Amino acid sequence: MPSMQRASLVLAAALVSATAAAQTKDPLASWNDGPAKQAILKFVAEVTSEGAAFVEPAERIAVFDNDGTLWSEQPIYFQLAFALDRVKAMAPKHPEWKTQEPYKTLLAGDVKGALAQGEKAILGIMAATHSGMTTEEFASSVEAWAASAKHPKSGRLYTEMAYQPMLELLRYLRGKGFKTFIVSGGGVEFMRAWAEKTYGIPPEQVVGSSGVTKFELRPNGPVLLKEAKVEFVDDGPGKPVGINRFIGRRPVLAFGNSDGDHQMLQWTAAGSGRRLLGLVHHTDAEREWAYDRQSHIGKLDKALDEALQRDWTVVDMKKDWKRIYPFER
Amino acid sequence: MPSMQRASLVLAAALVSATAAAQTKDPLASWNDGPAKQAILKFVAEVTSEGAAFVEPAERIAVFDNDGTLWSEQPIYFQLAFALDRVKAMAPKHPEWKTQEPYKTLLAGDVKGALAQGEKAILGIMAATHSGMTTEEFASSVEAWAASAKHPKSGRLYTEMAYQPMLELLRYLRGKGFKTFIVSGGGVEFMRAWAEKTYGIPPEQVVGSSGVTKFELRPNGPVLLKEAKVEFVDDGPGKPVGINRFIGRRPVLAFGNSDGDHQMLQWTAAGSGRRLLGLVHHTDAEREWAYDRQSHIGKLDKALDEALQRDWTVVDMKKDWKRIYPFER
Repeated sequence: MPSMQRASLVLAAALVSATAAAQTKDPLASWNDGPAKQAILKFVAEVTSEGAAFVEPAERIAVFDNDGTLWSEQPIYFQLAFALDRVKAMAPKHPEWKTQEPYKTLLAGDVKGALAQGEKAILGIMAATHSGMTTEEFASSVEAWAASAKHPKSGRLYTEMAYQPMLELLRYLRGKGFKTFIVSGGGVEFMRAWAEKTYGIPPEQVVGSSGVTKFELRPNGPVLLKEAKVEFVDDGPGKPVGINRFIGRRPVLAFGNSDGDHQMLQWTAAGSGRRLLGLVHHTDAEREWAYDRQSHIGKLDKALDEALQRDWTVVDMKKDWKRIYPFER
Repeated sequence: MPSMQRASLVLAAALVSATAAAQTKDPLASWNDGPAKQAILKFVAEVTSEGAAFVEPAERIAVFDNDGTLWSEQPIYFQLAFALDRVKAMAPKHPEWKTQEPYKTLLAGDVKGALAQGEKAILGIMAATHSGMTTEEFASSVEAWAASAKHPKSGRLYTEMAYQPMLELLRYLRGKGFKTFIVSGGGVEFMRAWAEKTYGIPPEQVVGSSGVTKFELRPNGPVLLKEAKVEFVDDGPGKPVGINRFIGRRPVLAFGNSDGDHQMLQWTAAGSGRRLLGLVHHTDAEREWAYDRQSHIGKLDKALDEALQRDWTVVDMKKDWKRIYPFER
């Protein structure tokens, strides 16, 4: 055989094998081959293939809770960690905080003591760090925090604590023509500052809680001012309301992890045709955290009962996930 | 030449010429070759080509007002026409309307007389026809109306009164990687029922005014109930607020037609880099309507002053548009 021809054959064989490898590469490589992974693959195959369960691409809306579903939420919600860090950063401009609670306790380094002052104290911290500035100033403060603040347990950036299996699921769904949305109780402007980079989800596909903003025409141009007034709480029954308001279409897939996602799952399940309803169950005290029915954060009780009864997909973090975070081997 | 070979050459020539025709086909064929069309083509070329003005596809957000910008708004806003039609359709279930104003006058066929009863009467009609039902029931009522109701002047379906030049602009922008949004004072659920079919804009890219909805778990499943309470008015200073809330990114292109769009144009203009700000000026009393500074509907006064001063793109409907509606030759 002439050498040119031989080289061509070798090249062709290499191309065929590379193509085969790409085709067989597991899109959900960090998922163990259990019932959760099988349910996802089966659902996606059914709604994207010709047949009775086919769903038009425009209708392939997939919604995900954020805290505890796409990234961790322990020992405190990451947005609260942001607020506490912001109090420290903003303190030089607030000398009154030296004598005012809960700031005094917090600035003395006693986070637990500050949080123990109750809901009103925490809401005060949230208001102080999330209002009284323009939307652009706020976004900058979140970006700076996300690029530098470290989680107390992992020592990693908070955005590195997104779940690797869920990152794979988001990418896999988008590859199959789904439009992925966040529908979270977290602040919409907080999430938008890092969601695109972390999850590949653009700002216009992030639905969350929000405060009132006000348009103001200043001498050097218009601004939107963030006011200390809650506008919308995207949690519990607020989630289907938020889906209707922001998306205007009923999802075919919904993933959550707590009772705050219960109504979103019910609303998604009630549509006609095939649906996938998923719950991330935090069962891994070693690699992540283990909590459910008794937890103050991410309490999962009634939604778990309905999931078990209706055969929704309950992801057992310990059994179903090979890796939790992208930084693990 | 053997006939097979000749046939191949003819076919190849035909393919080349079809491709060339497709490439040179004017994407804005219903626009006369004036300054407005030139400004649009220049802007799009600049932000989509390598260079200082290049805008990443993810940032190519284009927002459009609806009434008077994408479709007509005379002699009354089309959503109000829907509400008046709904009163007639709903009357058999509301015997009390026979003696109750403004319904009595309206049901007697005197539209002008009913509307002359003032803002409170009109708001009452809007509430009666837009609440007290589920979101799905409401969407069905809009779909049925859009498929059958005829405009009093044109005798056409209301959705046929979308502007052909703007339909071309929407399609052209999407072909260039823009994401097109509606940002309108109209009701978001009213528009979503027909916007995808009419404009190619999916529900999740429609921003509008909204009423409060409430999640309710009924024995046969969950519903969202529309309540008679205004939640958000997406008009004037509400438009930048709505853009921030629903899109979370500053647009690079904004099109409106009235002072209700003024702040949206200011907000868009204040971003860094190249922007396109457009106003549809209703100057064609023959083919459409002519109105601006003195009009009760679609009043265009302050925004026109700023547009002229800052050299925004003012579309002179009479001069700039070859065709107004798709049904014209």
